[in-house]
Amino acid sequence: MLQISKRGDAMPASPIRKLVPYAEAAKKKGKTVYHLNIGQPDIETPKQMRDAIHKADFTILEYTHSAGLESYRKKLANYYNSVGINVDYNEIIITTGGSEAILFGFMACLDPGDEVIIPEPFYANYNGFAIAAGVHVVPVTSHIDNGFALPPIEEFEKKITNKTKAIVICNPNNPTGYNYSEKEMLALKEIVVKHNLYLFSDEAYREFVYDGKQFSAMYLKGIENNVVLMDTISKRYSACGARIGAFVTKNKQLLNTAMKFAQMRLCSPYLEQIAGEAAIDLPADYFDITKAEYLSRRNLLVKRLNAMKDVFCPNPGGAFYAMAKLPIDDCDIFCQWLLEHFEYNNETVMLAPATGFYGTKGLGTKEVRLAYVLNCDAINKAMDCLEKALQVYPGKTN
Amino acid sequence: MLQISKRGDAMPASPIRKLVPYAEAAKKKGKTVYHLNIGQPDIETPKQMRDAIHKADFTILEYTHSAGLESYRKKLANYYNSVGINVDYNEIIITTGGSEAILFGFMACLDPGDEVIIPEPFYANYNGFAIAAGVHVVPVTSHIDNGFALPPIEEFEKKITNKTKAIVICNPNNPTGYNYSEKEMLALKEIVVKHNLYLFSDEAYREFVYDGKQFSAMYLKGIENNVVLMDTISKRYSACGARIGAFVTKNKQLLNTAMKFAQMRLCSPYLEQIAGEAAIDLPADYFDITKAEYLSRRNLLVKRLNAMKDVFCPNPGGAFYAMAKLPIDDCDIFCQWLLEHFEYNNETVMLAPATGFYGTKGLGTKEVRLAYVLNCDAINKAMDCLEKALQVYPGKTN
Repeated sequence: MLQISKRGDAMPASPIRKLVPYAEAAKKKGKTVYHLNIGQPDIETPKQMRDAIHKADFTILEYTHSAGLESYRKKLANYYNSVGINVDYNEIIITTGGSEAILFGFMACLDPGDEVIIPEPFYANYNGFAIAAGVHVVPVTSHIDNGFALPPIEEFEKKITNKTKAIVICNPNNPTGYNYSEKEMLALKEIVVKHNLYLFSDEAYREFVYDGKQFSAMYLKGIENNVVLMDTISKRYSACGARIGAFVTKNKQLLNTAMKFAQMRLCSPYLEQIAGEAAIDLPADYFDITKAEYLSRRNLLVKRLNAMKDVFCPNPGGAFYAMAKLPIDDCDIFCQWLLEHFEYNNETVMLAPATGFYGTKGLGTKEVRLAYVLNCDAINKAMDCLEKALQVYPGKTN
Repeated sequence: MLQISKRGDAMPASPIRKLVPYAEAAKKKGKTVYHLNIGQPDIETPKQMRDAIHKADFTILEYTHSAGLESYRKKLANYYNSVGINVDYNEIIITTGGSEAILFGFMACLDPGDEVIIPEPFYANYNGFAIAAGVHVVPVTSHIDNGFALPPIEEFEKKITNKTKAIVICNPNNPTGYNYSEKEMLALKEIVVKHNLYLFSDEAYREFVYDGKQFSAMYLKGIENNVVLMDTISKRYSACGARIGAFVTKNKQLLNTAMKFAQMRLCSPYLEQIAGEAAIDLPADYFDITKAEYLSRRNLLVKRLNAMKDVFCPNPGGAFYAMAKLPIDDCDIFCQWLLEHFEYNNETVMLAPATGFYGTKGLGTKEVRLAYVLNCDAINKAMDCLEKALQVYPGKTN
């Protein structure tokens, strides 16, 4: 019998995308579905980026350098320097999405059977990359009660074995929106030094911090060889379909190794590198405007959620996600029910069940992730739906 | 000590790209370098594709479906049907380059320690994907004397173990240009059936066949579940930097598994999918014109090579590569010498040493691959250089 691979079997289907058929069925019935389930912003991709594509001057869509267009890397280095990250353009490999930066990190640093510690809940696709690389994800649980702050460093210590090679953080965090403080980052540094680990820092949402500042892992002194910055333009410039990211490290040996993986797939898409390059020239107030928009959405969403009976939503400091605890039996059943059986004014809301973000089975069953990627009017209507739904849901608790 | 992974260490640097610094140094000295080393055609990307990009109507560069834009998949299915490959659009996953289609195949079908048989010389990056997936490449040697025809099926038989899970072919072949006949494909079918193997068929160069016809692995009856077509628009439409390929199979279980890997990296780049879609609407004579151009280049190149003393170049039936046996001690030394120490009228030529295409150490040391991706005038000048070089090369034999 022809068989698929064990790793193919173990690979999880996207926990966010598995509800899509129910959403499609609801829409076919004429229901409006508010998509708070996925990190696809409704913010326009900046006109300057679109113009760069529309005016791109080429006759042959050629391979670029495997590390990316040199002109783009130089500009991107300028951007990093402008936010206090001291890197040279030749310490950057342009990747096909932040996804590929994660894959390169796992492939270049970890061998099958090695372990990587990740605070949970975490971005579900880390599981996929880990399985592709044969690596075990060891979760350390963060908690909704304190807004998903970094777990005490002793909790990390407990998980360390001789197979532990790296820690992954996402800062500010997807799915929790938590923004790790300088103090927390220094605590991470300590354990990284003590056990000589890699620190992979996914900073896709760097520019969206509403309270305090973002503290990059690249700011940490003395562990320059341990840190890999994994980045993407997807969220920063609302260009998710561009598939342009970056793998950034000052560790020369690691960079050379990652380059071999980059050469294997030849290069990243040409046109979107042009768009990425154009993004660096956006006016200085670009993020101010976008951030102000996300901030008003966050404030509205969190206020609406906490006003609902028995709902708790800690105020997220960054990104564009919030996690909420609901008075329900099971978030997977609830999210499906919202699409299949509920409507209010012929509308409903699509949420991401939190279970998909936890590595530990059984956690997150009463939590959902909400992405505030829709405007305030849509958020209000979506919250109306959720409020009504919680009143009539057959599996409600409390 | 922080260490890179064993697989990162094992990952080969690109054998083609390793000579790049020598080419750069030659150019800095003012030398013209004719690039016959890499499969980057000088043919223009069709205007219809460029127009599609320049006129792309979007305000948000959004994620596409993980399997690719439905409209593109439908058109691509039409293209396949037009060349006798009977597939439905939902049997296609759009990938980020043909590269990713190969990676998905290895990841979804093979586990670490499994073996894949590939006729050598073969596309060097198969090694990279195999190492990324923890898979062992087992080469079966094809020979320049018979133009790199498919090795006798008994040679495959000898290599089969209980770890063998798949055979990879590239048809027409990179680097040899050999076009596998129906008879050879039927021989492959037999062994695939007998040992229940996957047959991965890389058909990047399908449209460039000069003698006879291309025989797709998808034409083979009765092994539909075994066959995966790995495809790309890079060469077909001279759009290497687009990074758009396809993973095509009628095996539902495998397709579902590959989809989980596709979801992991979210989607392929949006704009180049638009370009790929536009390519399907090219006029019917598009390939005739391109093929005629490649054919005249091939004829010139092969004629010039075989006219040189002690040089042998079998006439390749497809793709845009030729392999030649030269009267030299070592192709790696020779190719570097061409860039570092040789010039004729202040010009030189860059070739790909064949050693990088063989899995068996010690093979191919007197062979080079030439990509006829430059026009006839440039090919003539490049051949002038090679002819002179072979007269004065210190390591010449015969």
